[in-house]
Amino acid sequence: MGRATDRRSVLRVDLDVTADGRAAVRRPDTLAVEEPLEIRVGPGGPGRRRPLAVTMRTPGDDLDLAIGFLLTEGLIRSDADVHTAQLCAGAETPNTYNVVDVVLAPGVPEPTTDPARNFYTTSSCGVCGKASIDAVRTRSPFAVADDPLAVPAALLAELPDRLRAAQRAFDRTGGLHAAGLFTADGELVALREDVGRHNAVDKLVGWAVRQRRLPLAGHLLLVSGRASFELTQKAWMAGIPLLAAVSAPSTLATDLAEEAGMTLVGFLRGRTMNVYTGAQRVTVDRA
Amino acid sequence: MGRATDRRSVLRVDLDVTADGRAAVRRPDTLAVEEPLEIRVGPGGPGRRRPLAVTMRTPGDDLDLAIGFLLTEGLIRSDADVHTAQLCAGAETPNTYNVVDVVLAPGVPEPTTDPARNFYTTSSCGVCGKASIDAVRTRSPFAVADDPLAVPAALLAELPDRLRAAQRAFDRTGGLHAAGLFTADGELVALREDVGRHNAVDKLVGWAVRQRRLPLAGHLLLVSGRASFELTQKAWMAGIPLLAAVSAPSTLATDLAEEAGMTLVGFLRGRTMNVYTGAQRVTVDRA
Repeated sequence: MGRATDRRSVLRVDLDVTADGRAAVRRPDTLAVEEPLEIRVGPGGPGRRRPLAVTMRTPGDDLDLAIGFLLTEGLIRSDADVHTAQLCAGAETPNTYNVVDVVLAPGVPEPTTDPARNFYTTSSCGVCGKASIDAVRTRSPFAVADDPLAVPAALLAELPDRLRAAQRAFDRTGGLHAAGLFTADGELVALREDVGRHNAVDKLVGWAVRQRRLPLAGHLLLVSGRASFELTQKAWMAGIPLLAAVSAPSTLATDLAEEAGMTLVGFLRGRTMNVYTGAQRVTVDRA
Repeated sequence: MGRATDRRSVLRVDLDVTADGRAAVRRPDTLAVEEPLEIRVGPGGPGRRRPLAVTMRTPGDDLDLAIGFLLTEGLIRSDADVHTAQLCAGAETPNTYNVVDVVLAPGVPEPTTDPARNFYTTSSCGVCGKASIDAVRTRSPFAVADDPLAVPAALLAELPDRLRAAQRAFDRTGGLHAAGLFTADGELVALREDVGRHNAVDKLVGWAVRQRRLPLAGHLLLVSGRASFELTQKAWMAGIPLLAAVSAPSTLATDLAEEAGMTLVGFLRGRTMNVYTGAQRVTVDRA
């Protein structure tokens, strides 16, 4: 099984040190591991699974990653749609544990591998932001608009530090994105890390799917980077009513959150934040 | 034609302000635009192009993006492999300008849309990091190992500020990744920005392809975030001998750079940096 970190030799250059006449030093450095994971999907029986996607990820929680990916892409709706999922040897010698083989339950439609057909089947506009939003709305099994979650802004402001404190235990590389699932009280329920931020969220959602915790009503998701359309989609597909990001959201992330009735918080840093949509869930008390 | 930024209304919360008894304020905020771009590829004649990929990108330089994507994925080798590339209306009303239609030159093989077949055709290991590296090595038309580029570490240390200074003119959102192409003297040749860092690099490379500047020997590429396998692949496919990142590289990025004979610099911040591979190109003078 792969490891999440590995070491490489590095030449460490500090110009202030060399200005003192000392040499740059060679030393070991801990890096985040990146390896491909192929997700194969199909009905039961031998030899019928087809490669659906290859994602570059940090090894670990690979079944969660595959299940989370399938759910957030709208290809399954719950754990019950999966007959079996296993790390698979395939034709590999030695086994690299870089293939997850998913057998869908009877009656679950096989996905297409056409990159466009998966998303642009519902809208008259063809390929555009509105079509992307329509596609997610059509697929999302969960309504989050009426979720009564309310979180004090002061509590939200504490969460990045809580995420980083928990992350520090795992991340020795400076190279991993983090996704944290919190309760309305600010309790960290689960944390996942990955070189790819979408993978970190898929691992988190896949864990929740396999724990039969969906929809994640009343929870909030905090991500270490920016809020893209894709991350907002994943939050909605998991039934999470509030997505908070340490950095900026995109226009399409904001528009999708608005459509979903989701709360989207960006630039959550220090004692400030921007609430882009669903501001009713963020309570701000004047002194 | 789409814009790179757009405005949304945001509730700006500053806990120090509300502690003073003042209210959170609603104000406009400038966001990075994110819209899907579908890249269609095929031989000449009407109606034969098939969707190859959909990427979420910031509108602008879309032909560069499509051409750069095709080149860095190894599907074309130069501008001469492209018969025509155009922003296409498709069946869209109104035209969203979110489709690029590429007609390949006669004799250029059509790509497969199978996500695995595009990468894992050469290695006995199936799906693994080594196979990923083998696939890029097989495809890369340019040898960078013997590129005599040499850059003083002190010059490298200045480049993130140069990139940010140039970026400031474009990026009013805090939400865009940047990729900058520099000469060995530290002159910024071109800068591209995008919500997706791979798109920023593809736009840069596609511009160079269309300018017939490949291989980009003697140049270096600076990216605002982390160095992934994918970004390292793109640099190699464009013949760039040095990739520098403001943040961390992954193991597979480092291994690919080693295989290519490329220089990989990470954590390029302030007066320090880590040189992961190809350290002979970074000159460090003791005082």
